[in-house]
Amino acid sequence: MNNAFRRAVPQYINQEFDGRQRVVIENVSPEIDGGKYPAKTVEGQCFFVEADIFVDGADTITAELCFRTLGSTGWQCSLMEQQGNDRWQGSITVGLPGRYEYTVKARVDHFQTWKKGLSKKIDAGQDVSLDLQIGALYIDEGVKRAGAADAAKLTLFASRTRSSDAGEAIAAALDVQLAILMERYPDNAHASLYDKVLALTVEQKKAGCSTWYELFPRSWGSEPGKHGNFNDCRRQLPMIAGMGFDVLYLPPIHPIGYTKRKGKNNALVAAPGEPGSCWAIGNRDGGHKAVHPELGTLEDFTAFVTEAEKYGISVALDIAFQCSPDHPYVIEHPQWFTWRPDGTVQFAENPPKRYEDILPINFESADWQNLWIELKSIFLFWIGTGVKIFRVDNPHTKAFPFWEWAISSIREEYPDTVFLAEAFTRPKLMARLAKVGYSQSYSYFTWRNTKQELQDYMIDLTSAPLKHFMRANFWPNTPDILHEELQSGDRVKFIIRLVLAATLSSNYGMYGPAYELCEHLPVGEGKEEYLDSEKYEIRQWDLDRPGNIRAEITRINRIRKENSALQQTCDITFVRIEASPGLEHNQLMAYVKRSEDGSNIILTVVNLDQSGKQAGWLRFPLELFGLSHLHPFKVEDLLNGLSYNWSGEWNYVEVNPWNMPAHIFRVLLA
Amino acid sequence: MNNAFRRAVPQYINQEFDGRQRVVIENVSPEIDGGKYPAKTVEGQCFFVEADIFVDGADTITAELCFRTLGSTGWQCSLMEQQGNDRWQGSITVGLPGRYEYTVKARVDHFQTWKKGLSKKIDAGQDVSLDLQIGALYIDEGVKRAGAADAAKLTLFASRTRSSDAGEAIAAALDVQLAILMERYPDNAHASLYDKVLALTVEQKKAGCSTWYELFPRSWGSEPGKHGNFNDCRRQLPMIAGMGFDVLYLPPIHPIGYTKRKGKNNALVAAPGEPGSCWAIGNRDGGHKAVHPELGTLEDFTAFVTEAEKYGISVALDIAFQCSPDHPYVIEHPQWFTWRPDGTVQFAENPPKRYEDILPINFESADWQNLWIELKSIFLFWIGTGVKIFRVDNPHTKAFPFWEWAISSIREEYPDTVFLAEAFTRPKLMARLAKVGYSQSYSYFTWRNTKQELQDYMIDLTSAPLKHFMRANFWPNTPDILHEELQSGDRVKFIIRLVLAATLSSNYGMYGPAYELCEHLPVGEGKEEYLDSEKYEIRQWDLDRPGNIRAEITRINRIRKENSALQQTCDITFVRIEASPGLEHNQLMAYVKRSEDGSNIILTVVNLDQSGKQAGWLRFPLELFGLSHLHPFKVEDLLNGLSYNWSGEWNYVEVNPWNMPAHIFRVLLA
Repeated sequence: MNNAFRRAVPQYINQEFDGRQRVVIENVSPEIDGGKYPAKTVEGQCFFVEADIFVDGADTITAELCFRTLGSTGWQCSLMEQQGNDRWQGSITVGLPGRYEYTVKARVDHFQTWKKGLSKKIDAGQDVSLDLQIGALYIDEGVKRAGAADAAKLTLFASRTRSSDAGEAIAAALDVQLAILMERYPDNAHASLYDKVLALTVEQKKAGCSTWYELFPRSWGSEPGKHGNFNDCRRQLPMIAGMGFDVLYLPPIHPIGYTKRKGKNNALVAAPGEPGSCWAIGNRDGGHKAVHPELGTLEDFTAFVTEAEKYGISVALDIAFQCSPDHPYVIEHPQWFTWRPDGTVQFAENPPKRYEDILPINFESADWQNLWIELKSIFLFWIGTGVKIFRVDNPHTKAFPFWEWAISSIREEYPDTVFLAEAFTRPKLMARLAKVGYSQSYSYFTWRNTKQELQDYMIDLTSAPLKHFMRANFWPNTPDILHEELQSGDRVKFIIRLVLAATLSSNYGMYGPAYELCEHLPVGEGKEEYLDSEKYEIRQWDLDRPGNIRAEITRINRIRKENSALQQTCDITFVRIEASPGLEHNQLMAYVKRSEDGSNIILTVVNLDQSGKQAGWLRFPLELFGLSHLHPFKVEDLLNGLSYNWSGEWNYVEVNPWNMPAHIFRVLLA
Repeated sequence: MNNAFRRAVPQYINQEFDGRQRVVIENVSPEIDGGKYPAKTVEGQCFFVEADIFVDGADTITAELCFRTLGSTGWQCSLMEQQGNDRWQGSITVGLPGRYEYTVKARVDHFQTWKKGLSKKIDAGQDVSLDLQIGALYIDEGVKRAGAADAAKLTLFASRTRSSDAGEAIAAALDVQLAILMERYPDNAHASLYDKVLALTVEQKKAGCSTWYELFPRSWGSEPGKHGNFNDCRRQLPMIAGMGFDVLYLPPIHPIGYTKRKGKNNALVAAPGEPGSCWAIGNRDGGHKAVHPELGTLEDFTAFVTEAEKYGISVALDIAFQCSPDHPYVIEHPQWFTWRPDGTVQFAENPPKRYEDILPINFESADWQNLWIELKSIFLFWIGTGVKIFRVDNPHTKAFPFWEWAISSIREEYPDTVFLAEAFTRPKLMARLAKVGYSQSYSYFTWRNTKQELQDYMIDLTSAPLKHFMRANFWPNTPDILHEELQSGDRVKFIIRLVLAATLSSNYGMYGPAYELCEHLPVGEGKEEYLDSEKYEIRQWDLDRPGNIRAEITRINRIRKENSALQQTCDITFVRIEASPGLEHNQLMAYVKRSEDGSNIILTVVNLDQSGKQAGWLRFPLELFGLSHLHPFKVEDLLNGLSYNWSGEWNYVEVNPWNMPAHIFRVLLA
């Protein structure tokens, strides 16, 4: 080929450039950062791909979505369909966790173009004898591409299309069997391939739907005052599984530093015997690959993980890349830290604040390659004990290129690992962590409290680009965050936030038992930290304390488990509720979720006002389901078992928080 | 470098991957289709680039926009500024037409990070003696990077920062001169470069601002009934320039086919002596590189082009890649056409419609490379006569890859060529033509008639992504399109559409003299074609016909010429006009445009209702200019010379179409 053509023309993949490839394929979605990062989905899901596809002139085109496992040869292709405005859509149901590739192929379909023109000319009463001769030539070409049996059929069609009996020839040309045969042997000689092969990461099911429970093992000792251990935690598994949780997340389980150890309520100096913060990792007993001796042995931990699996619970570990001043790394790898002119290591600080019990790792270390390999090996070490889910502490304070490399290289070997980013930071940093590989992310949910805030945030999360790569995990509380809204201790408020987290997001979690017991005192006015935080001391919990909301948690988790509409986040539609005609209600909010196959429909109605009954008229969007606004249907409140017959789109709803601050309706349209 | 690191990590340009490059640069704008196509601007304009730039943790960063002529080595870099939400912006004023490149560079600024922390610690009354020692080390590094004179200054600063006198040391550390010196010698060791180098096409001024006049030379004969020629057209140049046009566009000037020649009003058979459609190109006298003998010689044409330039007028040629059955290509390059089984060439058709006077070129020809080279050579041929502007007929019916190659390769040699796409087709095809290189595009303006339609369309055109690569040219009429709105012949309506085209878009044009004479009869009811269309016959025009709008055209073009705010399209703000309090006026529309330097401000108010006076209250957006809503200012109507003193944002406006259906106010804020 003439080199002059190469310079300015687009490069197509897997083939030499051919100027006859007239079909244009652009604006493929999902395509993250121009194809730099993979889109994400979860095993067993339907994955949709869209593209703008068109050709010059009036020719008919055919488009295919091409899909394959990364590294395999050959593509699995399926026809795409036109959506209007030159937008096309295709889909594929994905298999096991792993890395896949997709692209789009399209071609001018001369046979179809010809057939459409023929029909119009026949309708207009024009002479089509020459057109039939032209069509027969297309069929001749099909014969060459077809297998033996079909070639014979096509030869017959070609012959009939050339018949001197006009009626016979037209009947043959328009025969649907001919069209089917011609589609079976497409002319791909000048087909266009999209100029990128895009990546798709398929993750395990819990990446897309998970129910998290966080506990501090040391608080679960068999008797008051005794340091809890993994064997104590094993005994709690039936309780945790019974409440409906399927991920059990443990704060760091490693040896805790002594130097500058923090005391109760974050005191700068710990009293003798105080356990310290488990995020100040490492002492003479070991670092990130060691178990704090008071929690048990590595074998105890492995047994705990194995036992949890029997209850359907995945144990998630907290990976916090920071060191106490006593961490072995400080001696063994001094080059990974920042040393000051006085010969000490720089501790963490956010001037003028100082965090002297923690040393940050220097990601600009000249020895960054060995640092990266060691940090990655920490994940591999715990994967070796059976852990597949990691909650990573403050990933936004470690270099992004490290995460990109670490997560993708771990996934090459262990495609079913799940990473939750504990990032409460600016929006673009959170999105970046998701792009570079995190399965899930902590979110702003905790601080989205009004109807408008919650709806805006959900729309942001469930629209492009975020919906293609970021999965928010909604936590109404964490050991660091007791939101002001909960500080009143109002039990109803705890249930409201529980319902919102559990029904808005398919991934949600809580720091328990603080949440189920409605623990609500902050360490000080205007603070979001808990008083007597478990981060700095061993607590005892009376799980049956009056006012607890364990029954509500159990019921709501069961509803999530039984309704696939709640096992996904992105198919959500906020519906209108009016306080009076034309006036949107500002305390009642409602949203519809649908399962992928459309068979399960959940309408949640939440009263954001814990202090009083609210009522209004709700408009159920029957048009989403192709139904008339007069269609009668039934809704069943899964929280109290009551059913209602609704006679059309507008229906009266009332939510009395003293009974239950929400309805979770299963909608039965048929 | 360990190969294991290469696989999953991002690739940075022009350097080996280094994991210490912590700064993230993403979401650069403009970036067309992931960098596949160049952004566009016009010589002398300020070109703005934005990017999301951030780093893990709390370090301070510095970012630069890097710019260069394509193919040159070394970059011209300028600092970018933070816009909030991790968005940064930089700009550069571009030079001559040609191809340029840009990218973004950013780095952690450890010195600035340190200085900020130092200030906070000082404010908090903390001991900073160790911090000063640390800072002195950063200054030592600066000394190594600095030139001799500055190195000496920095050495002194390092020494003072180490002073045992705390006051002296702090004063040195916070000295603004030190900060300036340190910024002059940045530490780029671990700077991040954006992973793409993006292309920018800078075009000549008329690509961005042009005023087009279309005429059929054959109608300008020196006496009635005589075929006009280029010499006749030369005599019209003072008139055309006097009206303020700077591009004179001629329909095809080539020999016209005889076979199946169309007659008056698109009759299927021409009567003897009828001239035929000039879009049926080619006969025994030649094809696309020949001049229709009755128009004159090639020398006459070249002289005409040269003469026009003296009036500031660029002659634009129509390039229509289609052939009459008599075109020499049919004999010389039969392989470029589609032959039918009966031995004839396939004519153009859109079943059941047939266009037998025109043969389409087959872009799937096996000989496509020679076809492309020949078609490109047609542009080069006319460039040789001095033509720099081409209006391309129906480019959306020719293969897109051809345009991409042809336009970019012509521009390599002739960067000041301008291409206008005569594409009235679906939105994505129009955008694609702009991406692959067209300077301007015909638009939907003709069919956008209500206030809402016009505003929506303008917002679409002036927002990303279109604003980065597509420039609409607004035509109130063309020889093919006499919109229903104009068919009443209402002179005021013609002025309304003129004002809209001329003030909404910096590129606009008209088919004259049909427009200035308010020619308004369609060929039939419900048709948009003109009766007695010049496409098929020679017309005579009485330029002084009563009711013409030449004076208005002249005045409006002069206003465009004198007001740079109207010489650009994208800086436009639609302003509110209320018919009654709280109710948006649906007939009065108004918009503000600003010149790039902000010195010229034009507020246009148009009454879309040609039948009656309309009035309302207009809110001028003083906040755009950083002024109070009570700020008094002056507006001067450039159409009638009247001035008004306005005392704040809300002002009464009245537009009486019987005087003039619009105000074009120059706004004098100071």
